[in-house]
Amino acid sequence: MLYFTRLTYDNVRMSNAYEDFRRRASEITHLRSVLQVLSWDQEAMMPELGAIDRASQLSTLAVIQHQRLTDPAYGDLIVRLEEASGELDRWGKASVREARRQFDKATRLPENLVRELAETAALAYEQWVKARDESDFPAFAPWLSKMVNLKRSEAECLQKAGSSPYEALLDDYEPGITEARLDALFSAVQPELTALLEGVMASGREPRRLPSGPFPPQAQESLGREILTAMGFDWKAGRLDTSPHPFCSGFSPRDVRITTRYSTVEILKSLFGMIHEGGHALYEQGLSAGAYGQPACEAISLGLHESQSRLWENQVGRSRSFWEYWFPRLRRTFSPHFDDFTLDDFVFSINRVSPSPIRVEADEVTYGLHVILRYQLEKALIAGELEASELDQVWNDRMQDYLGYIPATSAEGVLQDTHWSQGMFGYFPTYLLGNLYAAQIFDQAERSIPDLDTQISGADFIPLREWLREELHIHGRTLTADELIEKMTGQPLDANFFLEYLKGKFGALYQ
Amino acid sequence: MLYFTRLTYDNVRMSNAYEDFRRRASEITHLRSVLQVLSWDQEAMMPELGAIDRASQLSTLAVIQHQRLTDPAYGDLIVRLEEASGELDRWGKASVREARRQFDKATRLPENLVRELAETAALAYEQWVKARDESDFPAFAPWLSKMVNLKRSEAECLQKAGSSPYEALLDDYEPGITEARLDALFSAVQPELTALLEGVMASGREPRRLPSGPFPPQAQESLGREILTAMGFDWKAGRLDTSPHPFCSGFSPRDVRITTRYSTVEILKSLFGMIHEGGHALYEQGLSAGAYGQPACEAISLGLHESQSRLWENQVGRSRSFWEYWFPRLRRTFSPHFDDFTLDDFVFSINRVSPSPIRVEADEVTYGLHVILRYQLEKALIAGELEASELDQVWNDRMQDYLGYIPATSAEGVLQDTHWSQGMFGYFPTYLLGNLYAAQIFDQAERSIPDLDTQISGADFIPLREWLREELHIHGRTLTADELIEKMTGQPLDANFFLEYLKGKFGALYQ
Repeated sequence: MLYFTRLTYDNVRMSNAYEDFRRRASEITHLRSVLQVLSWDQEAMMPELGAIDRASQLSTLAVIQHQRLTDPAYGDLIVRLEEASGELDRWGKASVREARRQFDKATRLPENLVRELAETAALAYEQWVKARDESDFPAFAPWLSKMVNLKRSEAECLQKAGSSPYEALLDDYEPGITEARLDALFSAVQPELTALLEGVMASGREPRRLPSGPFPPQAQESLGREILTAMGFDWKAGRLDTSPHPFCSGFSPRDVRITTRYSTVEILKSLFGMIHEGGHALYEQGLSAGAYGQPACEAISLGLHESQSRLWENQVGRSRSFWEYWFPRLRRTFSPHFDDFTLDDFVFSINRVSPSPIRVEADEVTYGLHVILRYQLEKALIAGELEASELDQVWNDRMQDYLGYIPATSAEGVLQDTHWSQGMFGYFPTYLLGNLYAAQIFDQAERSIPDLDTQISGADFIPLREWLREELHIHGRTLTADELIEKMTGQPLDANFFLEYLKGKFGALYQ
Repeated sequence: MLYFTRLTYDNVRMSNAYEDFRRRASEITHLRSVLQVLSWDQEAMMPELGAIDRASQLSTLAVIQHQRLTDPAYGDLIVRLEEASGELDRWGKASVREARRQFDKATRLPENLVRELAETAALAYEQWVKARDESDFPAFAPWLSKMVNLKRSEAECLQKAGSSPYEALLDDYEPGITEARLDALFSAVQPELTALLEGVMASGREPRRLPSGPFPPQAQESLGREILTAMGFDWKAGRLDTSPHPFCSGFSPRDVRITTRYSTVEILKSLFGMIHEGGHALYEQGLSAGAYGQPACEAISLGLHESQSRLWENQVGRSRSFWEYWFPRLRRTFSPHFDDFTLDDFVFSINRVSPSPIRVEADEVTYGLHVILRYQLEKALIAGELEASELDQVWNDRMQDYLGYIPATSAEGVLQDTHWSQGMFGYFPTYLLGNLYAAQIFDQAERSIPDLDTQISGADFIPLREWLREELHIHGRTLTADELIEKMTGQPLDANFFLEYLKGKFGALYQ
């Protein structure tokens, strides 16, 4: 009886401790969401002169978030809950594990560094926008250099024994991944991509050029909204806007925002952009709303996040089946531009493989080479083996090596992506990881959903969305990336799914 | 020599103290700006399901802001600076005075109340939007009741000896104003407005009905943007969007956002709405960017804020001179709807005096009666003399008394304004104060800018904007409302300017 009483008493104490933990963790989550609102606003809405005050707002909040995250009382709660983790449910266990990870990282970072990083990121972003518009790399180089130095300082604080500074930064985006594993995966993939590219170039086959419009942005937007709706994007819990660099930001499962940009001459930019960001958005909207606020209620990693965007963009959105339904609509909407295109013409054209300067517009074969290039350059920057000021030149040289293409301007070269301006080093490799995950997950989806192809031909995407939600989205971080992919597909991540998918698809198209 | 050294030493200590104070005050300012970004987003951008998390984000931040504002170390700094205020410049002196005011108020409010107010405001706002859409006052009444109770608790904390709880709430919007002074001003104005209204009704004159469109929203927006540009609104430091309830929010002098709403049948709603919010925006953009972050760098009071919106909307925007330039453009843009209107027809029509249900669409004569009604009702609510659940009925009865008009639905009655849903009791009287200030300030402008009328006829508004900026905007809170109006116009606030303006204008129109 006494024993029973003590157990009950402990349970009560435990549940109070968890409530206390959950309250604190929720506040940290809300602060993160507010930071995301501010960043979304900065990219999609904010007028030009707002930048300087926005930088101060962001850094003020980043410091407050850091203070909450490193509060010793929060640390004590984590210790108490770790000691009694047997009494927690799976969300509780995973949340305490995740909180420990965040707490340990945050306590290693001095407040001044956090402030300076947030402030510099906001200012450097504005400088990047300007430099890109004017294709002026030298104007941006000092900001990049400052950012690299700050990130090196951060990496030195976070670095674990036996690992590189760059690996410490990777952990923000792909928890648990190592440089060695990325090197192994990417060096297996790179020669195969190069071989595929050479095969394509040697085939002599060439798809028809897509028409160059003009395609009214409003019509592009309408069609994009129709496709997003069919994908199951919940407009009551999200919105679509424009920004210079398309992105998805999930403030919570109930408020997920995506952006795109419209070109009147290129129809694919916005359409595939919307499908891509829509895939990200479905992951964010699919997180458990009930668990929201607990540290484990978050996407597992950026690689898995990217798997969702790439799966919808490529495995679904660039398939012949997908366009069986949507091509007639596209043709009607943009008549007469596609009047003399057959479905097969169109599908071949949107799958053209051809070296080109811009990553986000690259085909599925060369895309990986764009990523590997960035991965190598950012490793070198953080290792101090490459100066920011030399980056322009090194970028162009390597583009010629990998793709046989020299960017005409910095805007279509080193300045094309926003990531580095905002200090996101270690982010790029997750794009290629995403492609690998996507191929393996879609392979499983085809086996788990027998009618998948027929559904896709009929624009009935809800079964696929539901399957992804149940198998992946809803679990948040209760599983690691490795555990998830093993549970979902029965085996660890294997680059061959991706390579086989590419060979099958482009082998058929280019014969 | 020793004396000199000590003085220098004290000066250094003093300037360090002020730097420390300024840093803390800036953080509080940034937090307030972030709260404003979140509210702007909630009203202009946020998808429906985002409301619940937004409430948590707002309350989390409101509590943090409250903690910063009540930090004893901040209080100590204020004391030190008060003791040595002789060494501060005018921004410093005013900022310490303002910080003292905020600190004293904040320390009287318990954190739980702050949290509950922020959370309830965000949720009640959503309930108000729904209730207004469905014209369902009973659905909103419990939320209003909850809000009234919370505001009463707040008022009891803030109340000073010898003053009413309502007066304590007033201070948030019109620092230093008393109930007695408002009563005196309003009871002088009310009978005159009633007499003017009766005179108009008895005149037998009736302007032509304005055409009912359809007016495409895009064309309304373009024309509105043109007018705002002419007014000197800085688009690099601001933007225009739509929201159910138009408003202006200045995150900083460098980021000022206004909203409007478009009706395809009523052209005036959006146009005068944009001019009105544009007037507010010029005040925010005109604050000293260099002093930004210091507590005194804020608009003096809502009454003076409203003076700027009403001056542009009415004294400028409803004048014949204004439309000499803009009417031909309007007629061209919306042809054929105004083809058979003369300028005089149009000017008379936009100045039609006629009792109507909606405050923001009311003419200049009845507007004050709308405000006085709200002032009386909210005083009674806070005093506990009126139950929230009875408000619908009392509202309609009083509308009949004052304006001879019974609202057909709650949506055009008690539910038309958002203020009470967000806990803004004490806000409404500043609207009428704004009209009084506007008349007195414009009277001075006409004497200080000899060519004003010619400039307005030519859409050259920059001299007026500059005069307002130099005389009012730039000073922030370095002066009180009373000091400002005396300095600006040579005498204290006097309702006769407003009454004379109305009599002159409507006497001429209605003969």
